[in-house]
Amino acid sequence: MKSNEFYISECIKLAKKGAGYVSPNPLVGCIIVKNGKIIGRGYHQKFGGPHAEVNAVNDAKKKEHNLINSTLYTNLEPCSHQGKTPPCTDLIIKEKITGVVIGTKDINPSVNGRGIRILNKAGIKTEQGILQNECRELNKFFFKYFSGNLPYVTLKIAQSLDGKIALKNNKSKYITGKESLKFVHKLRSEYDAVLIGKNTALLDNPSLTVRLVKGRNPYRIVIDKNSGLPGNLKIFTDKDSDKTLIFNSLTNKDIPIVSILRSLYNLNISSVIVEGGANIFSQFVKNNLFDDIYFVIAPKIIGEGISAFRDFNITTLSKAKKLFLNNSFLSGEDLILHYKKEK
Amino acid sequence: MKSNEFYISECIKLAKKGAGYVSPNPLVGCIIVKNGKIIGRGYHQKFGGPHAEVNAVNDAKKKEHNLINSTLYTNLEPCSHQGKTPPCTDLIIKEKITGVVIGTKDINPSVNGRGIRILNKAGIKTEQGILQNECRELNKFFFKYFSGNLPYVTLKIAQSLDGKIALKNNKSKYITGKESLKFVHKLRSEYDAVLIGKNTALLDNPSLTVRLVKGRNPYRIVIDKNSGLPGNLKIFTDKDSDKTLIFNSLTNKDIPIVSILRSLYNLNISSVIVEGGANIFSQFVKNNLFDDIYFVIAPKIIGEGISAFRDFNITTLSKAKKLFLNNSFLSGEDLILHYKKEK
Repeated sequence: MKSNEFYISECIKLAKKGAGYVSPNPLVGCIIVKNGKIIGRGYHQKFGGPHAEVNAVNDAKKKEHNLINSTLYTNLEPCSHQGKTPPCTDLIIKEKITGVVIGTKDINPSVNGRGIRILNKAGIKTEQGILQNECRELNKFFFKYFSGNLPYVTLKIAQSLDGKIALKNNKSKYITGKESLKFVHKLRSEYDAVLIGKNTALLDNPSLTVRLVKGRNPYRIVIDKNSGLPGNLKIFTDKDSDKTLIFNSLTNKDIPIVSILRSLYNLNISSVIVEGGANIFSQFVKNNLFDDIYFVIAPKIIGEGISAFRDFNITTLSKAKKLFLNNSFLSGEDLILHYKKEK
Repeated sequence: MKSNEFYISECIKLAKKGAGYVSPNPLVGCIIVKNGKIIGRGYHQKFGGPHAEVNAVNDAKKKEHNLINSTLYTNLEPCSHQGKTPPCTDLIIKEKITGVVIGTKDINPSVNGRGIRILNKAGIKTEQGILQNECRELNKFFFKYFSGNLPYVTLKIAQSLDGKIALKNNKSKYITGKESLKFVHKLRSEYDAVLIGKNTALLDNPSLTVRLVKGRNPYRIVIDKNSGLPGNLKIFTDKDSDKTLIFNSLTNKDIPIVSILRSLYNLNISSVIVEGGANIFSQFVKNNLFDDIYFVIAPKIIGEGISAFRDFNITTLSKAKKLFLNNSFLSGEDLILHYKKEK
């Protein structure tokens, strides 16, 4: 007999296969176990498509398994409402599954414990809160989406050990190494959108696509207060040019970041990765409009250059923006530090 | 039967007890094992005092052990020359110890394999190269001392995530936390000297002593190109004021760092920790006169302020100073990154 934690971690692995394709829906994996054996697996593959539970049930049935007396494992509470697909609780009851083990409750107000109550009322035993932190981290975009009206925002800052994101002359497109670029492409494949400022668009002419790993391309957002971007930039001319959005202001003033994020939210963009430059990073942090930051640190000292942040104008350390370290890992010769906003 | 690695790691632990007291001698621990039991332990406690081997032999004899057929373990090759004390090889032969296991060879030209050869000639079996990397790291000051005419130099840089060592207004004496201060005091207790620039002396009026951990105070070195330090600074008035050295230039010009380091070397100072500020850090790194750097990273974004390095004037990334990560560890809420100069 494997532990609940084992099966839920298998669900998490399955769920991750949907990363980049289900937004603003959650990532969900599902496993059905009978007599100690996994008889069905499924995950939510595509926004609007069948839920993980449906796919796992169909997988089991395809192999001609009977679901009576089986236990269903899922990282997120099964839905209890009619959405684009029928409620999963109905399916579980109909199939006479006898137990449901849940990673974390769904905070979607249409579910939020109702799924569990409906199952219990039908005589199905439930357990919840298995690997809860991992399950919440897995669906951080989804939980943010339902807890406010802003997308989840991650800053990715590639810098030298002395905190420089570029040389003074800007001749420094890649401070960090190839492994880290791969990491960034992986992030892009999982986030709905990548956002940059006008200067980064002009100086680097980046494509902001996913090339070094498998995955779909994100939306590309450029903030440009005065519509000055030339039409020959890669983001306008490559095959994904319909996924490029420009936010500009008719009044030549800074557009409030919060308005841009609200607009993105209304377009069902639930996650944004901010890739630069200094002016953009500064606005997100000064306005507290971010959730976490990946600092990608190259093992180099540059000595002078452009810092990631500016114009904070703080006069005492107590005004510094406090973060906390979530985790850190090596990336080739670089070190990636993942910080979250103070709890 | 414990492994050679086990006993050598015990030697390393013993050796560390001498840290701060034996310079420019090496840190050495010694264990004597007979019939699978440790019968004697010793370490080099004080410059000029008896060697670890002597202390371990005496320890065993005090407990009335006979050393015939015992094995001696030590992190560093036993000495074969008459220094302030007689050669340890003589003692080992006289006591009829039958085997000697050595962490790493002594690169002191008066030893450098001669200790091993003398033992072998006397019919004593030797093994060497056990936990060699750890043994060399333990005695990095000593190995540097014998491989050139400069002390081992470590930079300690406390900075924010965005690479700032101070606010613009300099109102930021302690960017990092209490745990990290303890770490710095521990370093000070192990290094022969702490070095700072004139501005740091004036702005912070630091005492540069060991207070948060047990240990002796280091020498305090201030570089001041024009003799402008007021006599009421802590380093001049506290009880250790005789351990304060000022390097100043009569010509009001920068004193070459290398001359200062040679002078320190000639005073038998084999290790220096450089604690700031930006001008000093920059000179050490630009002139390649350092061995490693501890970056102590506070989980804060300051936004603007003073960077650790300046005036590098590099125009291409290939000119950046390359380092490599040796290890990293948490220190309260801070993260300490230990980088070494490129191999």
